[in-house]
Amino acid sequence: MSLGTIHGVGLGPGAPDLLSVRADRLVRDARHVAYFRKAGRSGQARRIAEGMLRPDAIELPMEYPVTTEIPVSDPRYNACLSAFYAECTARLLALSRAGEDVVVLCEGDPFFYGSFMHLHSRLSGQVPVAVVPGITGMAGAWNATGQPITWGDDVLTIAMATLPEAELVRRIRDTDALVVMKIGRNLCKLRRAVTAAGREAEAWLVEHAAMPEQRVTPLAEATSVTPYFSILLIHGRGRRP
Amino acid sequence: MSLGTIHGVGLGPGAPDLLSVRADRLVRDARHVAYFRKAGRSGQARRIAEGMLRPDAIELPMEYPVTTEIPVSDPRYNACLSAFYAECTARLLALSRAGEDVVVLCEGDPFFYGSFMHLHSRLSGQVPVAVVPGITGMAGAWNATGQPITWGDDVLTIAMATLPEAELVRRIRDTDALVVMKIGRNLCKLRRAVTAAGREAEAWLVEHAAMPEQRVTPLAEATSVTPYFSILLIHGRGRRP
Repeated sequence: MSLGTIHGVGLGPGAPDLLSVRADRLVRDARHVAYFRKAGRSGQARRIAEGMLRPDAIELPMEYPVTTEIPVSDPRYNACLSAFYAECTARLLALSRAGEDVVVLCEGDPFFYGSFMHLHSRLSGQVPVAVVPGITGMAGAWNATGQPITWGDDVLTIAMATLPEAELVRRIRDTDALVVMKIGRNLCKLRRAVTAAGREAEAWLVEHAAMPEQRVTPLAEATSVTPYFSILLIHGRGRRP
Repeated sequence: MSLGTIHGVGLGPGAPDLLSVRADRLVRDARHVAYFRKAGRSGQARRIAEGMLRPDAIELPMEYPVTTEIPVSDPRYNACLSAFYAECTARLLALSRAGEDVVVLCEGDPFFYGSFMHLHSRLSGQVPVAVVPGITGMAGAWNATGQPITWGDDVLTIAMATLPEAELVRRIRDTDALVVMKIGRNLCKLRRAVTAAGREAEAWLVEHAAMPEQRVTPLAEATSVTPYFSILLIHGRGRRP
């Protein structure tokens, strides 16, 4: 029997018609559909694919054993997640070896700060793995602001809000355009860093980009609670003939 | 008569099935199709849309009066391009005012280092303008390498090869992951900068990402000539549970 293929499929930022034509076909045809989610939640990727799955699709939710309960600096965090990814890999390997293809739903682009890459690195070389790139969440976010993120020779820095505050300040000072992801409960720290870098007036917070609840707020007016998938943007001001 | 809409449509990195479902519909239905190109060339955006246009589509090629013949630092460069964008804007305004929708084909994502933004800023507020985000060329490039570009808390820096060499060296030293675009005839300078930053062994050159001619080469083995749309990548090495 030939091995099935594990497809890591980028779904884009949120709107169902922003999947690529290739991703759209794979998701609609899939018999086995896997996705990550936090226990008790529907999961961002699964939400994007709502209404697209075959009626007889078999779903494999993969529930993170931990998200923010243990700090990433704690060795237990890595041990716990490592065991989890190994278990997910075993489930996907079993399906592939039974000749079944599996579509793994990935929000945004699978190779850009995603979780699929932790399966990809474990599956590669054992069974066929294919990746479909997607429109990133950050492209959905800058599209939501109605303004280009970069012009001419602008330098764009992409940083995670999980970085130490002093490092965030340094990065925000030393760039033309900026994208910050993984914000969630780091919003207060991030706001202090943007202010310390003297750029609060240029910063926008985008929540639920490309979805019906989409909201674009000047950072100065943002409330202190924001979803994990929120994105902070500072637009570049480069050459404009 | 109601005004037509000017759609800036991101086509993605190159493969025809990597357009979004929304972009695919707009391109296939469009009666007026505009795109930038260098005189005497077919143009990257138009090539991606090959075989997708209606038989009765009316094409509006917009030919750059200058690309690399005048250095961007020369005031004539800006003056020349500014007059060109004004003329393109006038053509699109006239169509919109005649009630016609126009699809402007954009390689990658229209708001990410594209030319469409120079029309967007001139058209906005005058006639309806809509933008469809796309998969960026850089996502096509890191997908071509088969490796994630970023992990965990990696900082990703995106820089243009048109920057001064010393600035490139500084940026390449001070980042986890790297994307460099607008390479073309700047390849030798970029290679010196990557070497000076001590990172030549990690750097990959991706040519024609997501197209049949796709090629991934270690930078150390790259030849001295590469297309304008080539992309240099250094992958991040962040947290991997």
